[in-house]
Amino acid sequence: MNNYSNNRKRYNEDKQNSKQPHSAPTKSEKSVKNEKADAGTAATGEITAQAKQQRKENRKTPLKIIPLGGLHEIGKNMTVFECSNDIFIADCGLAFPDAEMLGVDIVIPDFTYVERNQAKVRGVVLTHGHEDHIGGLAYLLKKINVPVYGTKLTLGLVEGKLKEHGLNGKVKLCEVTPKKTVKMGCMAVEFISVNHSIPDAVGLAIHTPAGIIVHTGDFKVDYTPINGGPIDLARFGELGSRGVLALMADSTNAERPGYTQTEKKVGNSFDNLFTKAEGKRIIIATFSSNIHRIQQIINSAVKTNRKIAVFGRSMVNVINTAVELGYLSAPKGVMIDIDMMNRYSSSQIVLITTGSQGEPMSALTRMAMNDHKKVNINCNDFIIISATPIPGNEKFVTRVVNELMKSGAEVVYEAMYEVHVSGHACQEELKLMLALTKPQYFIPVHGEYKHLKKHAQLAEEMGIPSQNIIIGEIGSVIETDGVDMRIVSKVPSGRVLVDGLGVGDVGSIVLRDRKHLAQDGLIIVVIAIDKSTNTIASGPDIISRGFVYVRESEELIDEAKQILNNTLAQCTIHDLREWNSLKTKLKDALSEYIYSKTKRSPMILPIIMEI
Amino acid sequence: MNNYSNNRKRYNEDKQNSKQPHSAPTKSEKSVKNEKADAGTAATGEITAQAKQQRKENRKTPLKIIPLGGLHEIGKNMTVFECSNDIFIADCGLAFPDAEMLGVDIVIPDFTYVERNQAKVRGVVLTHGHEDHIGGLAYLLKKINVPVYGTKLTLGLVEGKLKEHGLNGKVKLCEVTPKKTVKMGCMAVEFISVNHSIPDAVGLAIHTPAGIIVHTGDFKVDYTPINGGPIDLARFGELGSRGVLALMADSTNAERPGYTQTEKKVGNSFDNLFTKAEGKRIIIATFSSNIHRIQQIINSAVKTNRKIAVFGRSMVNVINTAVELGYLSAPKGVMIDIDMMNRYSSSQIVLITTGSQGEPMSALTRMAMNDHKKVNINCNDFIIISATPIPGNEKFVTRVVNELMKSGAEVVYEAMYEVHVSGHACQEELKLMLALTKPQYFIPVHGEYKHLKKHAQLAEEMGIPSQNIIIGEIGSVIETDGVDMRIVSKVPSGRVLVDGLGVGDVGSIVLRDRKHLAQDGLIIVVIAIDKSTNTIASGPDIISRGFVYVRESEELIDEAKQILNNTLAQCTIHDLREWNSLKTKLKDALSEYIYSKTKRSPMILPIIMEI
Repeated sequence: MNNYSNNRKRYNEDKQNSKQPHSAPTKSEKSVKNEKADAGTAATGEITAQAKQQRKENRKTPLKIIPLGGLHEIGKNMTVFECSNDIFIADCGLAFPDAEMLGVDIVIPDFTYVERNQAKVRGVVLTHGHEDHIGGLAYLLKKINVPVYGTKLTLGLVEGKLKEHGLNGKVKLCEVTPKKTVKMGCMAVEFISVNHSIPDAVGLAIHTPAGIIVHTGDFKVDYTPINGGPIDLARFGELGSRGVLALMADSTNAERPGYTQTEKKVGNSFDNLFTKAEGKRIIIATFSSNIHRIQQIINSAVKTNRKIAVFGRSMVNVINTAVELGYLSAPKGVMIDIDMMNRYSSSQIVLITTGSQGEPMSALTRMAMNDHKKVNINCNDFIIISATPIPGNEKFVTRVVNELMKSGAEVVYEAMYEVHVSGHACQEELKLMLALTKPQYFIPVHGEYKHLKKHAQLAEEMGIPSQNIIIGEIGSVIETDGVDMRIVSKVPSGRVLVDGLGVGDVGSIVLRDRKHLAQDGLIIVVIAIDKSTNTIASGPDIISRGFVYVRESEELIDEAKQILNNTLAQCTIHDLREWNSLKTKLKDALSEYIYSKTKRSPMILPIIMEI
Repeated sequence: MNNYSNNRKRYNEDKQNSKQPHSAPTKSEKSVKNEKADAGTAATGEITAQAKQQRKENRKTPLKIIPLGGLHEIGKNMTVFECSNDIFIADCGLAFPDAEMLGVDIVIPDFTYVERNQAKVRGVVLTHGHEDHIGGLAYLLKKINVPVYGTKLTLGLVEGKLKEHGLNGKVKLCEVTPKKTVKMGCMAVEFISVNHSIPDAVGLAIHTPAGIIVHTGDFKVDYTPINGGPIDLARFGELGSRGVLALMADSTNAERPGYTQTEKKVGNSFDNLFTKAEGKRIIIATFSSNIHRIQQIINSAVKTNRKIAVFGRSMVNVINTAVELGYLSAPKGVMIDIDMMNRYSSSQIVLITTGSQGEPMSALTRMAMNDHKKVNINCNDFIIISATPIPGNEKFVTRVVNELMKSGAEVVYEAMYEVHVSGHACQEELKLMLALTKPQYFIPVHGEYKHLKKHAQLAEEMGIPSQNIIIGEIGSVIETDGVDMRIVSKVPSGRVLVDGLGVGDVGSIVLRDRKHLAQDGLIIVVIAIDKSTNTIASGPDIISRGFVYVRESEELIDEAKQILNNTLAQCTIHDLREWNSLKTKLKDALSEYIYSKTKRSPMILPIIMEI
């Protein structure tokens, strides 16, 4: 309470500052000047004792910014803000596994640091309802149960997740609206409306004793969004005028020049394609969370008197939540149940489905592979894939497109049809955000290293000194006292793999074994040794899986057995007692033989049974 | 000999036909008209007995075109042309494995059909030296040793492959040049110069008793290529005027509107970037086979007084072959040995390297991962990735770019820098080829289904009737008698997986097992049973790999053992005799327990040893 009023006081001071004429330097601009003067010290030696004193006086209670995910990767966004005895967490997302994380379902951040400091944690603040921002939340809440703050739709989507994890009713969910501020101990978090590919997305202005940190969340600038207004550029500008200590901004599209197109463009494309598809059944695959996109499909369907049926579990869930909370509107009777489809002709129907990434188990993929109970693709289908493949998914999408086309359907998927726009800001928008917030320090976030680096270069081109740009890593502790900002240390951090119900029980050894097994398969050698006599009671037997088709490689297996027998024949009784060295001998002999014959190195597992 | 003179006769007849005034219909144009009349028969009944007789007389000795690879895929191009007792094969390439073909090195076509008909095979004709056109050749030649025809560079690259397979000196290699014709029994193959991303690429005009088949090979239209002239459009046009029965054309870029840029554009980009990189070491990664690209790097290096060192085994091999055969020219002293690098400053050096696709073992990847013996990446490096990621490789390339940037290097890789152009024709070039050759039938080749389909649509837009467009499959027998053309049957065909030295010994069962092992790992259950008493002599023991980290999951493993013991306790002596049913019982019990605890389904392998 006390801390919060301190903060409010500082906040009011900010307001007073903003009454100064625009040309007068703000506090933060002064700081930048000090910084520059300081940087020049060694060369010129001009810095005065007075300036030094000034710098010292400006120093405030330090703030720590600790990214626990979302840097050097796209996914599992999570950032810790810590000041005195208070911590809050911005977002808690998941990442999808790399091709190398065999068998892994999802990846979440390592929560060790927040678990160790759980007494300090005041809550989790969410910027929007995408998986890479909320998908790790249930796992975090199982460890530390703290209040969760988010906008209405975001919390609606969180509720679905909590139910899946048996946490419904057990977590305090606090709804916020843009322009509102919530206190987090000595810090206060203000929510600012932004545009993104999901409604109700917000950026954050984090008011701390050390200064204001602006975190854009995922954003783009859309002057004609589908619902809600454009991003609150005015508020970002207002904060910039008052003095922003640091800007943390979305780097996803930092490589792309220009502006991201408005979502409305896709609506126009839909209208044109719906006209072109007259007489045919229309099937559209898109991201289930892209409510704006779905609203535009509904709009086009209404204009052409079509009914809409929804396919795919996540699509059904999200649409239900969005309708319930008022984020999607459809005239009565437009949305129909799947089982009602056969009451209408093809030309009266639109199917909305999951599978825009060619995910193997998704509804669209099953339709493409002739494996869907309710939908058979044929030449009377007009299919729109309203998405761009996420890197790594290109081949999946291509396979689905090929199969749909083989069934005779017309498939629209190429960029030229403008059936998708990005949800993230391109270079000109990123520059706009930098120009509005005029931050003293800049921390690019939400991207792989190449994105962060490009974003840093943009900031430098806009005049932010390179020493004021911080590219952190997961676990970096970025500390600021309002004057300086730098990486001071590192906390435990990393990735935790979730496989089925197991959280963290698949580590590097398990993955290494899976990779080995995947590459060349496995040969098991079993021997039974009679311990009383130290003689071989049975075996060696050979069992293989994923190595060769045994029925066609009998000779190889027979010879391998001979090699093992020869090796055993050379063993003394002493050898037969030393199982570890015996195992190594058998493994080496077999391994060498197999490699010489096949140039493959299957995993070889000698098993010795004691009788 | 006799066949060849027949063919020459027919060929001369063609020549006479071509002397007719351009407006007069050629033989093939007449056929198209007949075709149209015929198509209208059912509706109008207007066809005359005379026209029927005419059609009958026009029928010739049938030709079979049998694609054994390259359709519904990009890779392993191979086509059989068969007429009377003669067969020749156009190209014999490899494909790279899908993500699902775990552990597989390369994929080659199924050669069963040509093996069964090897007495008929007159030779293999190669269009150019890319892996997807020559990479399967050595495997084919091991089965049937026939002469190989190709241009100088193509054969130079083939020789390298034959050496690797111990076939050097054992195969008859026949060098051809564009405009030359070689006989293949009753058929004759004419070579026509085309542009592509490797020098010495040719298309084919296949003169057969049934008519002329034009096969473009891989092509683009480059009016300003790096060496050699532009594609021989005039010859394609001449053939078109005489009458082309069918066109088989490269569909790789059929989705892309417009024209493919000239290779020269990349040279301009290099010049600009070399200026920008002044004072830094330049490293360029590209495809080793892109000799034109390498020539342009040499040109830019010479202009800026830099020396060139070459990294990566395939890059060294190809450059050596190209220099030896005169396809690459560099002033003396420009190319230096790797070990000479340290005699020059960074600003005097260009490194050309493999790894433009982020291949894990390539030189560039090893440099990026700080794992290269001779090259350490630092902020004094200017790196150009002169390639576009092949679908499926995006994530590999991104990882390399991220790592290079982390070492402080500047990395140029985005499309906007124009450091790469495609080697394949875009839509306007494909239309040009259709317009020049005016084929009666059209067979799109070299592409996935979506590419073939798009190409077919282009052809239809240009007036080829849809019933004259044939999208075949691997193994389809497309038969023509010069009047009709259609798919009449299917021959044995498919893919053969090469893993190490094994050709074809990895099949669907092995792949299924590898996938299972990769996803959830493996649990082995071992029991020894004393046969004399039908009692358990030892076990059950549990060994797992790739499942969980056992040291942290002791409880799970202990409970699993208990489950097995309970199952065994319920077994009668009879059960212990019926090993198959005993194995099933153990497997089911364990599987159910593991799934309930982990929601995972590892492969469970019960092994029973008999004492």
